[in-house]
Amino acid sequence: MAGNTFGKLFTITTFGESHGKAIGVVIDGVKPGMPLTEADIQVELDRRRPGQSMATTQRKEPDKAEILSGVFEEKTTGTPIAIVITNTDANPKDYENLKDVFRPGHADFAYLEKFGVRDWRGGGRASGRETAARVAAGAVAKKMLKEQGVTVTAYTKEIAGIVAENLDLNSIENNPVRCPDAKAAKAMLSKIDEARKTLDSVGGIIEAIVTGCPPGLGDPVFDKLDAKLSQAIMSIGAVKGIEFGDGFKASSMKGSEFNDAYKSEGGKTQVQSNHGGGISGGISNGGDIVLRTVVRPTCSIAQPQDTITKGGEATSIQIKGRHDPCICPRAVVVVEAMIAVTLADCLLIQKSIQSK
Amino acid sequence: MAGNTFGKLFTITTFGESHGKAIGVVIDGVKPGMPLTEADIQVELDRRRPGQSMATTQRKEPDKAEILSGVFEEKTTGTPIAIVITNTDANPKDYENLKDVFRPGHADFAYLEKFGVRDWRGGGRASGRETAARVAAGAVAKKMLKEQGVTVTAYTKEIAGIVAENLDLNSIENNPVRCPDAKAAKAMLSKIDEARKTLDSVGGIIEAIVTGCPPGLGDPVFDKLDAKLSQAIMSIGAVKGIEFGDGFKASSMKGSEFNDAYKSEGGKTQVQSNHGGGISGGISNGGDIVLRTVVRPTCSIAQPQDTITKGGEATSIQIKGRHDPCICPRAVVVVEAMIAVTLADCLLIQKSIQSK
Amino acid sequence: MAGNTFGKLFTITTFGESHGKAIGVVIDGVKPGMPLTEADIQVELDRRRPGQSMATTQRKEPDKAEILSGVFEEKTTGTPIAIVITNTDANPKDYENLKDVFRPGHADFAYLEKFGVRDWRGGGRASGRETAARVAAGAVAKKMLKEQGVTVTAYTKEIAGIVAENLDLNSIENNPVRCPDAKAAKAMLSKIDEARKTLDSVGGIIEAIVTGCPPGLGDPVFDKLDAKLSQAIMSIGAVKGIEFGDGFKASSMKGSEFNDAYKSEGGKTQVQSNHGGGISGGISNGGDIVLRTVVRPTCSIAQPQDTITKGGEATSIQIKGRHDPCICPRAVVVVEAMIAVTLADCLLIQKSIQSK
Amino acid sequence: MAGNTFGKLFTITTFGESHGKAIGVVIDGVKPGMPLTEADIQVELDRRRPGQSMATTQRKEPDKAEILSGVFEEKTTGTPIAIVITNTDANPKDYENLKDVFRPGHADFAYLEKFGVRDWRGGGRASGRETAARVAAGAVAKKMLKEQGVTVTAYTKEIAGIVAENLDLNSIENNPVRCPDAKAAKAMLSKIDEARKTLDSVGGIIEAIVTGCPPGLGDPVFDKLDAKLSQAIMSIGAVKGIEFGDGFKASSMKGSEFNDAYKSEGGKTQVQSNHGGGISGGISNGGDIVLRTVVRPTCSIAQPQDTITKGGEATSIQIKGRHDPCICPRAVVVVEAMIAVTLADCLLIQKSIQSK
Repeated sequence: MAGNTFGKLFTITTFGESHGKAIGVVIDGVKPGMPLTEADIQVELDRRRPGQSMATTQRKEPDKAEILSGVFEEKTTGTPIAIVITNTDANPKDYENLKDVFRPGHADFAYLEKFGVRDWRGGGRASGRETAARVAAGAVAKKMLKEQGVTVTAYTKEIAGIVAENLDLNSIENNPVRCPDAKAAKAMLSKIDEARKTLDSVGGIIEAIVTGCPPGLGDPVFDKLDAKLSQAIMSIGAVKGIEFGDGFKASSMKGSEFNDAYKSEGGKTQVQSNHGGGISGGISNGGDIVLRTVVRPTCSIAQPQDTITKGGEATSIQIKGRHDPCICPRAVVVVEAMIAVTLADCLLIQKSIQSK
Repeated sequence: MAGNTFGKLFTITTFGESHGKAIGVVIDGVKPGMPLTEADIQVELDRRRPGQSMATTQRKEPDKAEILSGVFEEKTTGTPIAIVITNTDANPKDYENLKDVFRPGHADFAYLEKFGVRDWRGGGRASGRETAARVAAGAVAKKMLKEQGVTVTAYTKEIAGIVAENLDLNSIENNPVRCPDAKAAKAMLSKIDEARKTLDSVGGIIEAIVTGCPPGLGDPVFDKLDAKLSQAIMSIGAVKGIEFGDGFKASSMKGSEFNDAYKSEGGKTQVQSNHGGGISGGISNGGDIVLRTVVRPTCSIAQPQDTITKGGEATSIQIKGRHDPCICPRAVVVVEAMIAVTLADCLLIQKSIQSK
Repeated sequence: MAGNTFGKLFTITTFGESHGKAIGVVIDGVKPGMPLTEADIQVELDRRRPGQSMATTQRKEPDKAEILSGVFEEKTTGTPIAIVITNTDANPKDYENLKDVFRPGHADFAYLEKFGVRDWRGGGRASGRETAARVAAGAVAKKMLKEQGVTVTAYTKEIAGIVAENLDLNSIENNPVRCPDAKAAKAMLSKIDEARKTLDSVGGIIEAIVTGCPPGLGDPVFDKLDAKLSQAIMSIGAVKGIEFGDGFKASSMKGSEFNDAYKSEGGKTQVQSNHGGGISGGISNGGDIVLRTVVRPTCSIAQPQDTITKGGEATSIQIKGRHDPCICPRAVVVVEAMIAVTLADCLLIQKSIQSK
Repeated sequence: MAGNTFGKLFTITTFGESHGKAIGVVIDGVKPGMPLTEADIQVELDRRRPGQSMATTQRKEPDKAEILSGVFEEKTTGTPIAIVITNTDANPKDYENLKDVFRPGHADFAYLEKFGVRDWRGGGRASGRETAARVAAGAVAKKMLKEQGVTVTAYTKEIAGIVAENLDLNSIENNPVRCPDAKAAKAMLSKIDEARKTLDSVGGIIEAIVTGCPPGLGDPVFDKLDAKLSQAIMSIGAVKGIEFGDGFKASSMKGSEFNDAYKSEGGKTQVQSNHGGGISGGISNGGDIVLRTVVRPTCSIAQPQDTITKGGEATSIQIKGRHDPCICPRAVVVVEAMIAVTLADCLLIQKSIQSK
């Protein structure tokens, strides 16, 4: 399969460029008979939508989801669900002065080497706008997971060195950075504002927790749950790393500290601790799945930067498009979506293995 | 595809259990006409082989590679190359006392939930022994990469808190921990010895560098190079996290610091710095690919641990098999193999895109 | 991958129901830098479009192709090309009386058993209307093939027992049945007209010839060229069989008759005869690829038919929708499309194998 | 996936050349907990084994199946099952005189064009010997199907123009041509003998019937059951065509004749007739699946044939290896295997769709 399709039984294929006509997704393998309306998708798209606060890009996109197929009488039919989101505030002219230069940090040069041609309008396919299609697919996956008692929650854990400490997961949507620690959120916002004012950008860390995940998801040996989740999340544009459970801390831990012992509670086998992040040997063990992913500071910054042109001449650029000074607040929604899509796929595979 | 196959054009399918008859791999999509002998594979298997020092398990396995197909007159034919490695020192009796209990940290419980049955002999398919098949495949991939001028080098960067600092990449194979800093290596070894003596285990970090990688590898949007590498490496048993370039440090960096500007040198476009780890927007940018992955402390430890039986009764176990007190030294070879396999796949795809 | 995606490097994913909002396709893996406009696609859609003669359904659909992505400045960019065709003359009310009965020959019962729900509007996803998306994809594939000197031509070989004999391939589009024998075409048309008047339908055979196909396409052992073409063509709704070269006649032939000997002509190795239909051992041998496929008589007929309801009660139905009394004339275009899509995929794979 | 892997959830990957060390298969996705021994596989391999009568090649191969993995305590574990069959009677010298010429009908030229190199020992990977690996996989699939009440039966329907008419399916194994009509079998055998004596070969038709297949198998739109079965069966070396139900006869039938009406019997919906061969709109409809496939006369014949050398010079060859004068009797077993493998895959997918 070419690179724009993900998943084996629950399969998403996305398309679209930042300043083209539309972006969208075809979701194949959705369970038939599940209630689904455009509103179900809109609620997630609205969370990712730009222009919601000064922390995000000022591009005005309604991001209206239109379902073209696969749903009949407000129920899924088991056939592919195509969802299209029309681009309404495209502004390719913002990018005309950039069409022959390589923006630092961006994929401009790499795309040109790969394809020999390049859609320079706002990064084209390499734009973060592409992730709206993932969020639409994630909304469908989440509905499916909810029916199975699985919930996916992500939030901003760290921005520009400010770390969330006292987490109240019910308060995530209460602030524009999607941080469950109100005090940290305020400090993060001021860091973002400072970056914006200095024509710079900041990075951060997103944490995600999956509750209610049944044991047995993931397939040995290459399709381990953490391996698939890693592909899913690392495929989000600005992500540069991922870790599960205690993650990188494990390098200075001992086996006797890291091992999660089992207990039996109410007739159910459970882990006593969760250093492994809910995954043992690549298979879900019934504990909460816990992962963290690092988001690099936005590439597009308005201050002058040195670079070269396609022809190899040194030059300086200033990027004038509308950009998020920090990607985390909106990427939280994308991380949830990619986790949901991955789990939906694993669940369907496991249903088959468990069947009589 | 079920979970034991990896790759799209360069495809590996592995099989085998720790204490079964044999393990092995079928490699499909190898370039035809490439010289290949069993010796090419053996040299890599020998690096991963157990029993080489006190830092590794004392299981004695010659790990002899036998090529069953796909090679004729010492050249690849373009048809699948099957490689089998017979298990000669299997000792399932070591595990009989463990067959009804869930070893902490291991996949025992998760496998049982997944499949309903379980090969309890040394973890069965979940054993690290499975990775020998990956190393055999990696040897073939490395040969293909070498013809294209690409080299993959991994080494131990950190064990039990000891960090390698002055790196001499020519010295990696000079010590049993595969650390390119002789002084750090010595300290690491003493940490491992201490763990072994206290019936415990330690974790670490492996770093890898790919040189000579052409720009343009990786496919938007889900098959980005870092996304595929992440699935490849996270699918190695004990790995709990991965990062590229500056990785998790990016969370407290600014865009103006993280962005890699381009320069033109000798008619070639190059990055001036390498915070992104050789990858921009998921596509290789011609810089060295740099990644780090964290390896958890070995699950199997000989000290008593609390756990429960299949039936839910509390019990205590001591794991008596032969185990590595630290997985890093041997996992270095597996990390290289999985990187090589992934790059071989990306290269073949890119060859098709670039063709006339 | 779920079942609505086809191909490995040149990958198409289709969606849409007969009386839903739209149908469409996402084409991934198209060579970058290839000129492409909506007009290129429209020319093929117009050939398949309904309502062109009394031989086809009277549904009025303009079948306008809209490209949403993957094309920039009238050139492909290497990113997915989404094409949407809006349904404008949907008439679900025609089908309301059929929503609880199983139409003979149709997939109604099978879909209900498969999915538990069913979009009864004109067969939903099982409608022949789905093939418009394939034709759009085929138009893109044909352009790619043309650049490589490969042409795909299909035509009606037989309808209702009337067999085309004196073939003039330049005359295919001169008559509404797409038969390259003007005299046979006339007789076929009268058979179709007779079927229409007696509220019945007729079947036929489509033949296809590929010229300019380079040797070496197709991959041992499961992705042989004829195996992939068979999946591609058998996946068209009404098709019930396929044969290559001498096909079923081979059952009464001898090896000495069937074997195609090789000759050298102008420095090129060529087959002297073409009993094998241009394919040896599943790989193209440089000869013209020749195949025939049988199309069953249209399921939807207006005469009364016995059947049962969902609840199991016997009943009689008359199908009043707008239907083709013979599918061949329009299926010719779909057969060409599926051949083109398959060859495009094989070509891209072979480009990688042949690369240095 | 490269071309030696088939199936999505029940996945087989085969390897091996005719005169190499061994051939084999890795089967991934087998239901865990299913009883399985080498004897289960041997019984099918013994049916395909050469040297059983004068109607087949005289090569002596015991075709002993060795299971290397995936089975523990005589039960499948859900992990990949590797099966290896060692070549013991390889005789590459028989082919040395052929290494620089293109055998008519064979894949020699096509492979050389594809790969640039060629294993000339008995056709290498293109040999019919490759199908032993498919039969081993088919044996496992059949066991799985049997547990679900599905049986697959194939037999010789026609050889050299002799057609079986009075079928007694219990008598298939009573004669060396596997024809369920004793009288026709005798006539077929004498045709084969005649071909052998005149240094020629004959073709034939194999028919297959699947009983007990539940409705709902196959996935719209490209993975229709008949489309997948067509790929599976057309991928067998000598096959040149396939048809379902009335197949090519449909070209001269009317819709009112071809449509299979539904009836309700014992609370079950059933087809009253079976012109469609148990498949409607690409999905199984609960009727028996009926298909026929044509097998070309064996390429390898001992009489002199004109051809050219690699260098383009005209020459004449006589093929002296040990070959079947008619492939049908043994191909019957391979056809059954490929049907079983395909149905196992469809069943697992459908289990997931039907799950709660």
